[in-house]
Amino acid sequence: MKGQTKEKDHLKDSESVLTDIALNAQLADYSPVKGCMVIRPYGYAIWENIKAILDKMIKDTGHENAYFPMLIPESFLQKEAEHVEGFAPECAVVTHAGGKELTEKYVLRPTSETIINHMFAKWISSYRDLPLKINQWANVVRWEMRTRLFLRTTEFLWQEGHTCHASFDEAQEETLLMLSKYKELLEEHLAVPVHTGMKTESEKFAGAHSTYSIEALMRDGKALQAGTSHNLAQNFAKAFETKFTTENNQQDFAYQTSWGVSTRLIGAVIMGHHDEIGLILPPRIAPYQVVIVPILKKNDENILVLTEAKKIIEELKALNISYKFDDRDNISQGIKFNEYEQKGVPIRLVVGPKDLENGFVEIHRRDTKSKEKDVPRAGIAERLKSLLDTIQKDLLQRALDYRKEHTQTVKNLDELEDVLNNKTGFARAMWNGDVALEALLKERFKASIRCIPDQRELDAKIIPCIFSGIVYQNNKEILIAKAY
Amino acid sequence: MKGQTKEKDHLKDSESVLTDIALNAQLADYSPVKGCMVIRPYGYAIWENIKAILDKMIKDTGHENAYFPMLIPESFLQKEAEHVEGFAPECAVVTHAGGKELTEKYVLRPTSETIINHMFAKWISSYRDLPLKINQWANVVRWEMRTRLFLRTTEFLWQEGHTCHASFDEAQEETLLMLSKYKELLEEHLAVPVHTGMKTESEKFAGAHSTYSIEALMRDGKALQAGTSHNLAQNFAKAFETKFTTENNQQDFAYQTSWGVSTRLIGAVIMGHHDEIGLILPPRIAPYQVVIVPILKKNDENILVLTEAKKIIEELKALNISYKFDDRDNISQGIKFNEYEQKGVPIRLVVGPKDLENGFVEIHRRDTKSKEKDVPRAGIAERLKSLLDTIQKDLLQRALDYRKEHTQTVKNLDELEDVLNNKTGFARAMWNGDVALEALLKERFKASIRCIPDQRELDAKIIPCIFSGIVYQNNKEILIAKAY
Repeated sequence: MKGQTKEKDHLKDSESVLTDIALNAQLADYSPVKGCMVIRPYGYAIWENIKAILDKMIKDTGHENAYFPMLIPESFLQKEAEHVEGFAPECAVVTHAGGKELTEKYVLRPTSETIINHMFAKWISSYRDLPLKINQWANVVRWEMRTRLFLRTTEFLWQEGHTCHASFDEAQEETLLMLSKYKELLEEHLAVPVHTGMKTESEKFAGAHSTYSIEALMRDGKALQAGTSHNLAQNFAKAFETKFTTENNQQDFAYQTSWGVSTRLIGAVIMGHHDEIGLILPPRIAPYQVVIVPILKKNDENILVLTEAKKIIEELKALNISYKFDDRDNISQGIKFNEYEQKGVPIRLVVGPKDLENGFVEIHRRDTKSKEKDVPRAGIAERLKSLLDTIQKDLLQRALDYRKEHTQTVKNLDELEDVLNNKTGFARAMWNGDVALEALLKERFKASIRCIPDQRELDAKIIPCIFSGIVYQNNKEILIAKAY
Repeated sequence: MKGQTKEKDHLKDSESVLTDIALNAQLADYSPVKGCMVIRPYGYAIWENIKAILDKMIKDTGHENAYFPMLIPESFLQKEAEHVEGFAPECAVVTHAGGKELTEKYVLRPTSETIINHMFAKWISSYRDLPLKINQWANVVRWEMRTRLFLRTTEFLWQEGHTCHASFDEAQEETLLMLSKYKELLEEHLAVPVHTGMKTESEKFAGAHSTYSIEALMRDGKALQAGTSHNLAQNFAKAFETKFTTENNQQDFAYQTSWGVSTRLIGAVIMGHHDEIGLILPPRIAPYQVVIVPILKKNDENILVLTEAKKIIEELKALNISYKFDDRDNISQGIKFNEYEQKGVPIRLVVGPKDLENGFVEIHRRDTKSKEKDVPRAGIAERLKSLLDTIQKDLLQRALDYRKEHTQTVKNLDELEDVLNNKTGFARAMWNGDVALEALLKERFKASIRCIPDQRELDAKIIPCIFSGIVYQNNKEILIAKAY
């Protein structure tokens, strides 16, 4: 009972943290549509930065962008048995259009495997047409019971990659390649470390042969599935007759993959990087990396300050440092400082008349909350560039340290319970693969197997299955956590 | 009767031109969803190029991107009387979601004035919050009776700008500024000349105070409304209570604008630039500006050709020339040449072993279909860069010449009929503003007033109204045409 209350408080806390940061930093706002949010300019600019980085990765690995209809004939969903079972309950349905009832209803895409396969079947006839590697940036709709800003919204923005290959192995290679790109995106750019691994049967994508995910740890101790990559094998190809003639002149169904990340990534950034003041943005995805606040007086000294600030701006531009110059004169410095701290702007640069006379400026680092006075004005852009790199690295290290502190190897259910309810974070344990035992986790601890990581990463082969207590050669190490 | 048959043939012709080019160039494909198309990678890459150019223009003029829900509560649409009348018949309606019938139905956004105003009302309270200048890149749905690839599809991609201002004049200035940006986009980048002007009352946006458009002339002699910019005045602000406190501490409703262009622009490119072979792409929006075709033999000479081609590629990259290198060895040159001509690639560069030995390469210009042999290999990238600029200019000039040839000043209905049914293109005429006379145009000629251009552009103040025959001081010159 006590545990339950604590858990509820904890949930409430982390939900209010997310909400407060998202609203105060003007990343998003509630909308009048159930479960849908409005992404405000500051939040959308983060999305644009993430999108530009990932889009380049996707294109550099040989994929091309395209666009498919958002409306999917309801009958398409039915064609793959597991798929319809998984998605039908979450679908929004268009039944009327142009003032009439439709003879065939349409669902708003919850994901596009079905409609894309319909087209693939038309476009592919020979092994020469393979591999076919397509990506789509789009909005999707999943009618969720319980929603949270960025982490789970009824409509969200994402990219979905869809590829066709001539063999299972090639599809598997693609699945893992894109998983590794997601890992790179999160660690190198979002400064959010992730575990990669396979999902269990009960957690895999509806219709996939196997699903892999990246799993991040948020600062409230909960795990977040931040992206998935699926080897679909021939499941959808068989349902949609996506066939090709092989080099040996045989007919075979295409081997496919699909993979996606969404605006949930902004949720990962919020819950992965914040403190009691608000958001802390990694420089590589910050809408502006430096905010320049001039100290304005009601006298002629402003000319010096404004002139010098403009010179600094030119120096920042030359080094590709993004900036915002806030010279509003009807708002106090203190209010400005607070606004940009809540928004997580990596560096604040204060330019004042007295400092300038002595050849100095002032720097404030958002991540460490440390202020440095008397920073030489000369060479400031280089100094900031280097500091931004440091902040980017430090944020990743901070997150890695946090994850290390919040990851325990557990040998029995008591230890597991202690991790899940008190220490929070990841528990590493062995599992014999029994689905019934996995179900226990959800019932008893409201936790789940986040993934089965690459076993070579781990060193715990001698530990018995945490549920059955048996040492068994096929035991696999798993990562368990409470999750969003 | 004869006229009617001719008109039908003409319509069929231009429709099959559009369809053939779009399908053969793999810009788009038909989808299984009524009136919706699939935008294939080659078509989507054009959209990405257009988007990048326009997005920069939008940001450079002080607008920020954001994202609003696609689902709009049906009741929102009702709040502005003209708006609901205009859009309700075209709406697709979500009535069920999550397995249940919804208590409030949602329409798929046909445009977002209503939901955005709901948010504006929340965000704006003082003149200090103004101007508020937002843009959204999104998909929209309008249930059209008759659809055509790119030019009119049930779902399409677009951007919609939405701004709030403290005065009518400022809103008007914004409306015309964005109209001028659209003109710049089309003329400087798409090489499609446009007339700008105001729409008549019967053609304006449902809910606007006034609508301005850019009107292009397609190569089949029909006009195309390629973009619109609306001064909404306070119409939506009043419906949604989007109020602000003025500098004088009074309450006023915000003065608003909205403006949009869509994937229809790709239709404008197709119908504005083609010949009997297929598409001709303006270099600035071509997915690749140069296709490099190496002449491959089944012997060691290939090494020279491939090595040299790779050097050329490095030189092109250094000058930011986009390229495609087609070294497929299982497809004949002739088939490759044909493919890239249909796709409208501005320049084909052929690299063969014999030419190379003599220090030459071969260039083919798509727009003029002219081939130049013995082009010096040395300095080829600079040569191509300059040629791409020439092609860009020539395409605009070709379109301007065509428009000039297909624009006639008409003084009576016989002359008008001759233009509309035989000469095709724009007819310039005077009009006294009588709506009943405007209706005649549609009934009798299946044509419409495309816009009332800036009167200073014109020199025909002494001509009587084409319908009434009366010279009247408020007569205005109008552009009449058959249109898509």
